[in-house]
Amino acid sequence: MGRNLARNLARHGYTVAVHNRSPQRVESLIEDHGSEGDFIPTTSLEGFVDSLERPRTAIIMVQAGAATDAVIEGLAELMEPGDIIVDAGNAHFPDTIRREAALRDQGIHFVGTGVSGGEEGALNGPSIMPGGTQESYQTLGPMLEAISAKVDGVPCCTHVGPDGAGHFVKMVHNGIEYADMQLIAEAYDLLRHGLHASPAEIADIFAQWNQGELESYLIEITAEVLRHFDAETGKGFVDIVLDQAEQKGTGRWTVQSALDLGVPVTGIAEATFARALSGSLPQREAARATLPAEAQQWDVTRPEEFIEDVRRALLSSKVVAYSQGFDQIAAASAEYGWNVDLGAMARIWRGGCIIRARFLDRITEAYEANPDLALLLSAPYFTSVVSDGLGSWRKIVAQAALCGVPTPAFSSSLAYYDGIRSEALPANLIQAQRDFFGAHTYRRTDKPGSFHTDWSGDRSESPV
Amino acid sequence: MGRNLARNLARHGYTVAVHNRSPQRVESLIEDHGSEGDFIPTTSLEGFVDSLERPRTAIIMVQAGAATDAVIEGLAELMEPGDIIVDAGNAHFPDTIRREAALRDQGIHFVGTGVSGGEEGALNGPSIMPGGTQESYQTLGPMLEAISAKVDGVPCCTHVGPDGAGHFVKMVHNGIEYADMQLIAEAYDLLRHGLHASPAEIADIFAQWNQGELESYLIEITAEVLRHFDAETGKGFVDIVLDQAEQKGTGRWTVQSALDLGVPVTGIAEATFARALSGSLPQREAARATLPAEAQQWDVTRPEEFIEDVRRALLSSKVVAYSQGFDQIAAASAEYGWNVDLGAMARIWRGGCIIRARFLDRITEAYEANPDLALLLSAPYFTSVVSDGLGSWRKIVAQAALCGVPTPAFSSSLAYYDGIRSEALPANLIQAQRDFFGAHTYRRTDKPGSFHTDWSGDRSESPV
Repeated sequence: MGRNLARNLARHGYTVAVHNRSPQRVESLIEDHGSEGDFIPTTSLEGFVDSLERPRTAIIMVQAGAATDAVIEGLAELMEPGDIIVDAGNAHFPDTIRREAALRDQGIHFVGTGVSGGEEGALNGPSIMPGGTQESYQTLGPMLEAISAKVDGVPCCTHVGPDGAGHFVKMVHNGIEYADMQLIAEAYDLLRHGLHASPAEIADIFAQWNQGELESYLIEITAEVLRHFDAETGKGFVDIVLDQAEQKGTGRWTVQSALDLGVPVTGIAEATFARALSGSLPQREAARATLPAEAQQWDVTRPEEFIEDVRRALLSSKVVAYSQGFDQIAAASAEYGWNVDLGAMARIWRGGCIIRARFLDRITEAYEANPDLALLLSAPYFTSVVSDGLGSWRKIVAQAALCGVPTPAFSSSLAYYDGIRSEALPANLIQAQRDFFGAHTYRRTDKPGSFHTDWSGDRSESPV
Repeated sequence: MGRNLARNLARHGYTVAVHNRSPQRVESLIEDHGSEGDFIPTTSLEGFVDSLERPRTAIIMVQAGAATDAVIEGLAELMEPGDIIVDAGNAHFPDTIRREAALRDQGIHFVGTGVSGGEEGALNGPSIMPGGTQESYQTLGPMLEAISAKVDGVPCCTHVGPDGAGHFVKMVHNGIEYADMQLIAEAYDLLRHGLHASPAEIADIFAQWNQGELESYLIEITAEVLRHFDAETGKGFVDIVLDQAEQKGTGRWTVQSALDLGVPVTGIAEATFARALSGSLPQREAARATLPAEAQQWDVTRPEEFIEDVRRALLSSKVVAYSQGFDQIAAASAEYGWNVDLGAMARIWRGGCIIRARFLDRITEAYEANPDLALLLSAPYFTSVVSDGLGSWRKIVAQAALCGVPTPAFSSSLAYYDGIRSEALPANLIQAQRDFFGAHTYRRTDKPGSFHTDWSGDRSESPV
């Protein structure tokens, strides 16, 4: 990805000094793509830094963790106040906060930036989410905006906020991506169970969905993947792929951070755990050998109606996942003082990145109409999408439970919907239990203050 | 809790030196309870340490984090090789691992121990989960076993494993407690919606359930809480308690650790997020003002059958939550080399602690019958419980979805059940998507190795 980012910069007229621990990597870049623009190959970190104009801008893309720290340290020793180091890798945002603070003491701007779009995006225009100081963005912004994806002429890049804000937003982007992929997988599974259809037939359904509100890169490639046949066996490609999904960590980080922030991101959590479950081989083996299904047959009598029910359930669940993700960004923005413009985040995700989708425009509009929106779900467009789909959503989740098709993300999203809109949650019983066994106190519905009941004594109530 | 633990020790014939930063706390302990046993009040840490017989054993119970570190440091300076420091607070297990390693260099045994049972348990017999070295347990064990709860004459205390094992197991204990409480709350909510019954009427149902397989402390106190009336308003007590459940962190830690270990603990995660949701006030307010219910009325025509369906759904979901928790302990035990005896964990939770329950005996039996059990759910007793209840479970989850009653933990547990027993998960589609957009490769069902398809080229497959 570093190589493609360098080529993207060169193609946009920037002079790009390149360096890699392995000199062959630099040589092969020049050999293969030297004609695309103005590259300065370098063989040492000193040579690399010396070749940069001041204020220097160095973009690094190495493995997260210790490798990143080592490169930053090496660069920082050679750089001067006012210079900029950009970490374009997938760093964990607390590391970015730590690094930014350390380099700030030296007068060096450290910019952790999310870059989404894979290898192809890096070359042709990714979605870029830079953190760091406003000052650094004055230098960096024009360059990053130039190489980013464009939608309706608008760059998919904006200054996200101070220190770790960029990497945080990229992390949540990936978390939403996990949820989106899990929801699509559940929809596919439902269609296969309900319609007894082949992958290629289901590909047509996804391709059709991609003409409407669900239009997105992930729906598009789902159709592509499902339409593909395995050359060796002649089977539908997806049927020869082992059903164990892997992960690299950003989904996990998203959920861990949401737990710290106290934001319920149940869709992302279920998606992350669904991947873990798929790889729990001894457990799956033991369960398959012993646990009965005892489920109803799925009898779909009206396929068109069923397909439309699944589509609506998918769309509603997806709205919940995005609403939860934006809730998490808002909470982190408040917690860390980042002042993130939520509508702008949706805008820069419209192109270049994996979750690019038509409906991101609607998110931008929702936050433009009401910058203080407490919950994306309650913006008029999303409320109407979900209420249009609510009957279908309930029906599909209920039928999946009866028929034994696992839909952890569909079900969890619906439970969230019913929970968040609930007038009264049974959390009062939980808090009462906590007071009973741990004297954790409770608040009352009818007056302020905290109270404890003397459960082991006369059961009188005292304010605390 | 420290005071009650000291009284418990004194009542068992141990001479207990006591120290507190506030001398008044020591004075009041002696004044109120000095006659219960042999206390040595001390006014300085030096005096406290000097008063201990060698090898010294100091039990500390202070706030987790920096306060604990400070006390440990103070003690360690005054102690000698062979002495033992016991942290009986709710420390985060990575801290315990760190502290154990640091003190080991000084020859001091550091024992992080879980203590469950609240104030009352600390006094009359808690469940105790000590980590640390086998050597330290030779000194400590008899004392901790003496003051622990007993069930059928068996102490609710055993050596869990090295360094952080004790605090880890206590953390998962608390995570399971979160799930158990959330499941009970959902059952209560379902009963209220379905039966239009009062809290006191539902108390009778829980009291009856407590005679059978669900017999447990949490079910017992649920009946107590639901039967209680608020003296001020005359209303059912639970109805005047604000529906916002609080949390102190161990549920969150459990889920965060499970994400690191790759173990799907969806029941605990949903329970933790349900508490967070209940406290998300601006979001709840926005949602209540805008989001429609569009749900069916819950028409229960046969109340007895409905109550039995809820009971079975609760029991099955509870089995899943425990199975997931034990899966997490097994994974951590393998990861950290703790060699935890899973059956023994269930045994020491039978008394003293918050999740004490009849069915823990069944867990012990399951691991005694098969120490290599890959999944608690697949042990004969639990498989039979769940398959007996499966029809009810499916019906209740489906009906809750149709009627708009949020059951995140019931639904998630059922989705886990259907996922883990599934012959084929749609994780294959997810892995195929990952190969499409990120060249993350996939494995095949029909041969070993990893493969990549050239999606942007001729779509040929290559081994990688």
